[in-house]
Order: sequence, then structure tokens, then C-alpha cells
Amino acid sequence: MEWIQKEFSLKARPRGFHLITRDVLEQLPELREIEIGILQLFIQHTSASLTINENADPDVRGDMERHFNAAVPENAPYYEHTLEGSDDMPAHIKASILGPSLSIPVGRGQLRLGTWQGIYLCEHRNHGGARRIVATLFGKRK
Amino acid sequence: MEWIQKEFSLKARPRGFHLITRDVLEQLPELREIEIGILQLFIQHTSASLTINENADPDVRGDMERHFNAAVPENAPYYEHTLEGSDDMPAHIKASILGPSLSIPVGRGQLRLGTWQGIYLCEHRNHGGARRIVATLFGKRK
Amino acid sequence: MEWIQKEFSLKARPRGFHLITRDVLEQLPELREIEIGILQLFIQHTSASLTINENADPDVRGDMERHFNAAVPENAPYYEHTLEGSDDMPAHIKASILGPSLSIPVGRGQLRLGTWQGIYLCEHRNHGGARRIVATLFGKRK
Repeated sequence: MEWIQKEFSLKARPRGFHLITRDVLEQLPELREIEIGILQLFIQHTSASLTINENADPDVRGDMERHFNAAVPENAPYYEHTLEGSDDMPAHIKASILGPSLSIPVGRGQLRLGTWQGIYLCEHRNHGGARRIVATLFGKRK
Repeated sequence: MEWIQKEFSLKARPRGFHLITRDVLEQLPELREIEIGILQLFIQHTSASLTINENADPDVRGDMERHFNAAVPENAPYYEHTLEGSDDMPAHIKASILGPSLSIPVGRGQLRLGTWQGIYLCEHRNHGGARRIVATLFGKRK
Repeated sequence: MEWIQKEFSLKARPRGFHLITRDVLEQLPELREIEIGILQLFIQHTSASLTINENADPDVRGDMERHFNAAVPENAPYYEHTLEGSDDMPAHIKASILGPSLSIPVGRGQLRLGTWQGIYLCEHRNHGGARRIVATLFGKRK
């Protein structure tokens, strides 16, 4: 049984949805040694989130951003947490809808993602800065 | 420590929310041997998702479908990813809101679901076809 | 390899979002003995949910409640599951959006939450009563 836990930073990205599958894999060469396991990714922030979605067409990422901006508006009349800017409270709400973590099955040394699945960083702030991820990889060695 | 990983298909279902607890359990007789563990289910698609909700009244599943259709409309003016049909981009968005995976505790050989909880396949496409699930069951044997 | 599974109840709380990090930690003194692991929390209900969000300003919890009430209205014309009250079907929908479980990395005997992250109980019913949680803690001992 193998347990590996690493913290790493994702470089600052503009507000929006960003494909980060490669960034994650580069941090985890140990993945190749796992026969069956789970990769758990956890973002240590409350205004950015992680999800899995289509990895091919950048328009999907744009549409995601536009949809969540429409569904979770800035300056809603009922917001009381407004001191940190108009993008802040919507960022908290989006972060809870999309969630702070992903659990991805690992098999024969690879993430068992579907053909069209990629890992997204969802950056909900205008200037969120670098984002810290705790990656916990556990499973049975090959 | 036990590690079991299986891939199986859920038969094609119409767009909507479908109770699949039984389909999942049929694939995993090994569950009975686990004293404490986790069942992780992962759907390898970006236009269908998994969730847990009420297992008794089919109206709940109908209301879920109607609500998500209202909240994530087809043909939103801001969609740019439109080549695969009007049900495609909403399906991607719903998939991220509901999520591609479930982690369910296992105790004394059973899923530790509440009395009213069932596992749902959320099919967001009009003609999504069969859906592939990777099930990873791990834990301590009885 | 350590496997600990406990069921405990969270006392009844009013409808809204509630910080429960301390309630959870009090139930799990064993956490201090884990070098690397995962804490999985699972709520055995379909009208309450768990999420992680900002742990400092109570206005964030109020804004979350107000936002989800606006986004998932009571008495939507398309609801058919209405016998259990106007707060019931919205509660099921919110529960699926936010999700029934959390997986939080554990390192050196502590939850590896970010500075501003806390665990929320999201109570979606007007009178939900006490809520049962199954906590599964697993990992490598110190």
C-alpha cells in the first residue's frame, strides 16, 4: 500500500476555466507505479474550484465561465459579504457548487479518465493569484 | 487491505435522472466482504453525472430534470460550443454541477446509505447511449 | 494502515449554512495519529448537504442561503413532488448541487484545510432535525 501526499501551486491564471491535466500529471510521476488506486486533489481555497469536463474545445471552457457568471451574478441585491469586491461572493458560491476536490480512479499507472475528460481549475476571482493543491495518491503498487 | 477496480456499462437511458443503486450493487458482490471501506464510482463522460438523492418517489427524479433544464437552458445566447446540438453544452454544465464521481462509505459489507438515499445516473443528453463507470472498492476485509 | 468509521449526529440546526469544523474534529481524536490519509464525511440525508467554504465571516453563510433560495425557488410551477411541503423539493435539488460528501486530505495529524476553509452543514429544510454523518478516516499511521 502506497501513500503519497504533495502540495504544489498552480500558477496564477485569469478568471475562467482552465485545463490543468498536464500540470497535475507533471507533479505526480509516482502515479505510474500504482496498479489500483485513487488520486485525490484538494484546492485549499474558497474562491476557486476543481472540476472535470471536456478537454478538446476551448469554447466549452468559455461557455462554462459565461454560464456561471449568469447563474451566480455579481452585485446581487441580497449579498452582504461585499467588502472584498464584487467578484468575491460569487466566487465563494461557485466554489461550493463545483467543489474543492476531485477523486479520480487510478489503474495500471494511469488516471482512468474518459477520452474526453480533462481536469479543470475553475478560477472565480479576477486576480486570484497562484492556487495551492494538496494531492493525495494512494493505492496498491504494481 | 482489499483493492478492487471494475469497469462496467450502464445501459442507455433517456435524458433524465435514473435510480441505479441496484445496477451498481449487482456489479459488486465483493462489497459483502468489506468491513470498513469506500466505494468510489466515476463516470467516464462529460455529459452525464452521478448523484445521490431520494430513492422512493419518481416525481423527485422528474422535478430534478425539470429544475436543471430551467437553471441550465438550451440555446443560451452566450453559448459558443453549439456544433453537437442544443442539448450538448447544457449537458457539460450540468455534469460539472452534479459531478462525475461519488464516494460512498462501506461498513459491515454494505453501502452505508441513509434510508432514503439512492444512487442516480443523471443523463443530460437526449441520446447519450451506454455510460461507462469505473468502480473502485477499497477497504479492510471482514 | 488505519481504518476508522464512526457514525455521529449533528444537532438540529435552523435552515441555512452552518460552520461545523469543530463538531467534526471533536468526534475524531484519532485524526492526530494519521501521517497521511483521507477523512471522508458522508451525510445520510437527501435534504441536507456538506460543503467547504469561508470560515470567518457569517455573512458568507447568509449570502449562500439567500443565493440558493433565489436559484432553487420554492413552489416552482414544474414541481410535482410537493406533499412534504414547499421547502422539500428545493432541499433535494440543493442537496444534489452541493453534494452529500466531502473528502479532505489529512497530513501530520491534521486536516489539510486552507487557512480560510471550514466545513459547512447545509441545512435545506425548515425543520430538518438532527443529521447523521458517517465519518470514514483512513490512512497511514505516524
